[in-house]
Amino acid sequence: MSSHHIVRDDQEPALIIANGDACSAELLGQLLEWSPLVIVLDSAMERVLELGIKVDVLLGDFDRGFDANYYKEQQYPLEIVHTPNQDKTDLEKAFDYLIEKGHRAANVIWATGKRADHTITNLTNIVAYRNLLKVVLLDDHSKVFLLQNQFEKWYTANTILSLIPIGKVTGITTQNLFYSLHNEDLIIGYRTGSSNHVIEDGLVKISHETGDLLLMECWD
Amino acid sequence: MSSHHIVRDDQEPALIIANGDACSAELLGQLLEWSPLVIVLDSAMERVLELGIKVDVLLGDFDRGFDANYYKEQQYPLEIVHTPNQDKTDLEKAFDYLIEKGHRAANVIWATGKRADHTITNLTNIVAYRNLLKVVLLDDHSKVFLLQNQFEKWYTANTILSLIPIGKVTGITTQNLFYSLHNEDLIIGYRTGSSNHVIEDGLVKISHETGDLLLMECWD
Repeated sequence: MSSHHIVRDDQEPALIIANGDACSAELLGQLLEWSPLVIVLDSAMERVLELGIKVDVLLGDFDRGFDANYYKEQQYPLEIVHTPNQDKTDLEKAFDYLIEKGHRAANVIWATGKRADHTITNLTNIVAYRNLLKVVLLDDHSKVFLLQNQFEKWYTANTILSLIPIGKVTGITTQNLFYSLHNEDLIIGYRTGSSNHVIEDGLVKISHETGDLLLMECWD
Repeated sequence: MSSHHIVRDDQEPALIIANGDACSAELLGQLLEWSPLVIVLDSAMERVLELGIKVDVLLGDFDRGFDANYYKEQQYPLEIVHTPNQDKTDLEKAFDYLIEKGHRAANVIWATGKRADHTITNLTNIVAYRNLLKVVLLDDHSKVFLLQNQFEKWYTANTILSLIPIGKVTGITTQNLFYSLHNEDLIIGYRTGSSNHVIEDGLVKISHETGDLLLMECWD
């Protein structure tokens, strides 16, 4: 949570707090502990301050009469980034800010829940940041990230893993998933790989040829 | 809420209660008032019963030791539909059930919130039911439905409308929206039309050539 913006190669991910449903205090605390930089989006600032969190950057278009400067004293030093461009969402602007500052990874919370348009846009727009910023979106039931063409990670048996194609994804092959795929395609709206699960403790391997494939680790 | 399953041409939409976050009692009450049939998905039944709602159909794979028959007496008459097929979600199975019974329209609640994989799958899989079932998905911040190629509806000024392409949508043209589109394309993950709004009281017109385009009426 320090506010110096020198980015080291091995630095932990920055934390972006968006403006959807709040997550548990436990998840928030875990992420804050290691985060070198905390960015809050627009009017979420009001809810964040109530939690006594030190914020480094407040970013938004502030288009609803929101007085960003009010927070400058309360959170000194606080960088205020005014982003009036309406072609991008506040979350995308936060990604752009981090990339410009040399960050390589970001965790995002409060990005789901409340408005469905915000939720689906936040979940899907991370694919455009492939190779620019390693983004992980978290809430109390989900951990979401974009897969590289070859992915492998150790999971315990029965972990729920959902493969969600953002558009069309071709040539998907899986190992150690209960509903296995062998060079198959998934298409959003028509055929997704939701609610799969891990067969046995060990490596799960997922490869695909083209397209943007999200992995969602989920729990009830 | 009657349980006779004769479907008239002019019948109000059936109501499907899925297993995500509960909506407000007010929204639930409005939808129940006119619904000729109430379907509850799987273990959501426990939460629904606490609200004192008469359920007509309980549908699911009941794969977690859930005892569907326990509810038969409490909700007599109650039809229990066991759908073990794992290629479809419970919500898709409920759509299939309604289509088979001759229904033409369904409202869906509790389909967003909690797990992100369920939320995005529920929001996007309605596009595959184009021309089969008129589906409207509602929560406390959103009303979501699939657009026909030509759409027009009267809205008040400043209503938030988001155009969310499920895949790629081509040739979109809008009238009476603040960020207007003129024969343009939207692509999920890369360019969406989130958080647009109505210019002035009156008809909004949205047309598109190919692809699946969701309209989301949203409010904070």
